Amino acid sequence: MTVLEQQGRQAKKASRILAAAGETKKNQALRMMAERLDKERERWLAANAEDVAAAKENGMSRAMLDRLTLTDQRIDGIIASIHQIIALRDPIGTVTKMEKRPNGLIIGRRRVPLGVIAIIYEARPNVTVDAAALCLKSGNTCILRGGKEAFHSNKAAVEIMREALVQAELPMDCVSLVADTSRESANELMHLNEYVDVLIPRGGAGLIRAVAKNASVPVIRTGEGVCHIYVDKEADLDMAARVLMNAKCSRPSVCNAVECVLIHEEIEEAFLQKVVPMLKTKQVELRCDSQALALVGSQGVAAAEEDWDAEYDDYILAVRTVKDMEEAIEFINEHGTGHSESILTANYFKAQHFLDVVDAAAVYVNASTRFTDGGEFGLGAEIGISTQKMHARGPMGLEELTTSKYVIYGEGQIRE
Amino acid sequence: MTVLEQQGRQAKKASRILAAAGETKKNQALRMMAERLDKERERWLAANAEDVAAAKENGMSRAMLDRLTLTDQRIDGIIASIHQIIALRDPIGTVTKMEKRPNGLIIGRRRVPLGVIAIIYEARPNVTVDAAALCLKSGNTCILRGGKEAFHSNKAAVEIMREALVQAELPMDCVSLVADTSRESANELMHLNEYVDVLIPRGGAGLIRAVAKNASVPVIRTGEGVCHIYVDKEADLDMAARVLMNAKCSRPSVCNAVECVLIHEEIEEAFLQKVVPMLKTKQVELRCDSQALALVGSQGVAAAEEDWDAEYDDYILAVRTVKDMEEAIEFINEHGTGHSESILTANYFKAQHFLDVVDAAAVYVNASTRFTDGGEFGLGAEIGISTQKMHARGPMGLEELTTSKYVIYGEGQIRE
Repeated sequence: MTVLEQQGRQAKKASRILAAAGETKKNQALRMMAERLDKERERWLAANAEDVAAAKENGMSRAMLDRLTLTDQRIDGIIASIHQIIALRDPIGTVTKMEKRPNGLIIGRRRVPLGVIAIIYEARPNVTVDAAALCLKSGNTCILRGGKEAFHSNKAAVEIMREALVQAELPMDCVSLVADTSRESANELMHLNEYVDVLIPRGGAGLIRAVAKNASVPVIRTGEGVCHIYVDKEADLDMAARVLMNAKCSRPSVCNAVECVLIHEEIEEAFLQKVVPMLKTKQVELRCDSQALALVGSQGVAAAEEDWDAEYDDYILAVRTVKDMEEAIEFINEHGTGHSESILTANYFKAQHFLDVVDAAAVYVNASTRFTDGGEFGLGAEIGISTQKMHARGPMGLEELTTSKYVIYGEGQIRE
Repeated sequence: MTVLEQQGRQAKKASRILAAAGETKKNQALRMMAERLDKERERWLAANAEDVAAAKENGMSRAMLDRLTLTDQRIDGIIASIHQIIALRDPIGTVTKMEKRPNGLIIGRRRVPLGVIAIIYEARPNVTVDAAALCLKSGNTCILRGGKEAFHSNKAAVEIMREALVQAELPMDCVSLVADTSRESANELMHLNEYVDVLIPRGGAGLIRAVAKNASVPVIRTGEGVCHIYVDKEADLDMAARVLMNAKCSRPSVCNAVECVLIHEEIEEAFLQKVVPMLKTKQVELRCDSQALALVGSQGVAAAEEDWDAEYDDYILAVRTVKDMEEAIEFINEHGTGHSESILTANYFKAQHFLDVVDAAAVYVNASTRFTDGGEFGLGAEIGISTQKMHARGPMGLEELTTSKYVIYGEGQIRE
């Protein structure tokens, strides 16, 4: 038995105990985690400093360094998010339907934890605590496999959380970290079918695709976001400009930011005149098809074929002309990643049709794509935004981390 | 683009049209399928005769031959099951929750089809029509890849169904058959990520494991059934004998039949005295641990290690002694496939505990495991019984063939 198999086995064993724990006990453990992360913050910061120093030496980019670095303020934020999770209602144990069948059997469907959730992620130490807390509240044990750049930070956080679990009289194996950060360990985790019920990759598109392609355990793909806004000829152009600015510029690095705007040719000139100066205040680079380029001139560049499938996560926007809504819909269904798509129009029938036929986790009428997340959708916290159709679609809150079990009360019934 | 990629592309395209079709239109298509399969039964029977003749020549086993063979009566049954599916309520379009958020956005969760469902199955021509009808009713297009032994039968059935689709003014690519029945085509289908939303293997344990291990498209595992009955010391032994007989002998070849009985040592002798003569009326072979073997003597044989994980699908039963319920639960969670598990007891606390901690799709108290299916659970028809936790667990009816989409009605909202 390999080290990871051993770890999987322990996580599975712990999951049976955790599955039977009530909300009171789970909240108690979460409170102890929050307290202990607070008290032991020096230990956590020191471990993080080690990672940051090594990363600087290895020439990590500024953006990545920023994500890796913990500060007192960030730790406060992480602790606050544990308290948010404590405040959410535990979905476990709810019976979603129950009925008495003609033969007298009483059959109910009860919400239960998935079991063991593995999470592969990159160098963001906040994910370590966030993911562990969400899994714990939903009755799941987790195996965390963070990026090697954040290893010391993750190790410290997981140790502190395991101490809190022991204090709360739950198995410490409810949360564990994969000690080996090599590619091989990630690969082994993707094939740990006997112990891992679900694997959630969190990070860039490259990571997610590699996991989805290679894993034999069930995977939930999250956060691939090539999102579009279609500006219809019947759109209110002032509103459209405001929404597009928000969707592109309020936080370009996240998956619900827009990457491509599709503009009805009849209003394209008027719309670009309005929106381009706004986008230019944020130095947004415009990658345009020939028709749009003719209108924006030196303020844009010609788009290459790759631009129509690009997730920039940056101040870059692809701009494309369409002759009508049908062309926009076809383009979205061909090039989108099934994340968030929006139509801006005053026309009722177009709005309804767009909602009907666009194939994505979240389809909007007259709103920014930036709203797609657990908090905005009223789910409380989220572990990611699923862009696949199986199991969960869109922001994944606590309920999406559960499955069901049929419970059947009989009196000796046999089947004829 | 390969032939299968082309087929996938067409199925995806058809799925966008089918997703927008209402229940009336889908029911019309199903009625036309039923009518046409009725009128064209000679054509279907002739194609089946070809398969049966070839199978006989190749020395197919009698049980397999029986599953392959169509008769007028069986076709009547297949047509009747289409009518059953017509009678079920279409789940598509239902909004499961909708609320107005503080910022005025109206956010709803709407039930939508999965898209393209691929099904890999063995030589049972009834699956072809059954699966296609369930997919159609739930708004999904399907790509069917049946066993080569049933190729002519499947081809005829799919042709007839496609004719009905055209007649009903739906794309004929709502249903298609993989023409190449080689291992390579199955393998390609398992990696058709761009077009296949979900792959459901239907058949023996070997097929299902191979698909789950190799596929990169999302898979739902179905029908792996190593089911247990635990006879507690507080069980009513007459009831226990009746239930065990039913669970083993009413239809041993199906996945919800029991394979292993766990007996509390204190009542083992009394229970075996009661049940063994009953089991012997059906020539059930008993594979026993040493303690049980000492009690049944020449009526049993010694179990080998493999017997504790075996899915016999036959008149064979593994018999094991346990010292208490905890040992039974641990054994079930270790050796079960997460299908159906039952405790027979008069003790309230034991019953509740067993329901809580046994990790399976269906957990019973005082009833036969044979009830786990869509009809018995009140779902109407089913496409299989999921033994995984992701997406669906237990019998999969129409609802389990759907996913959701968030629809958001705005008035120009942007995110601060």
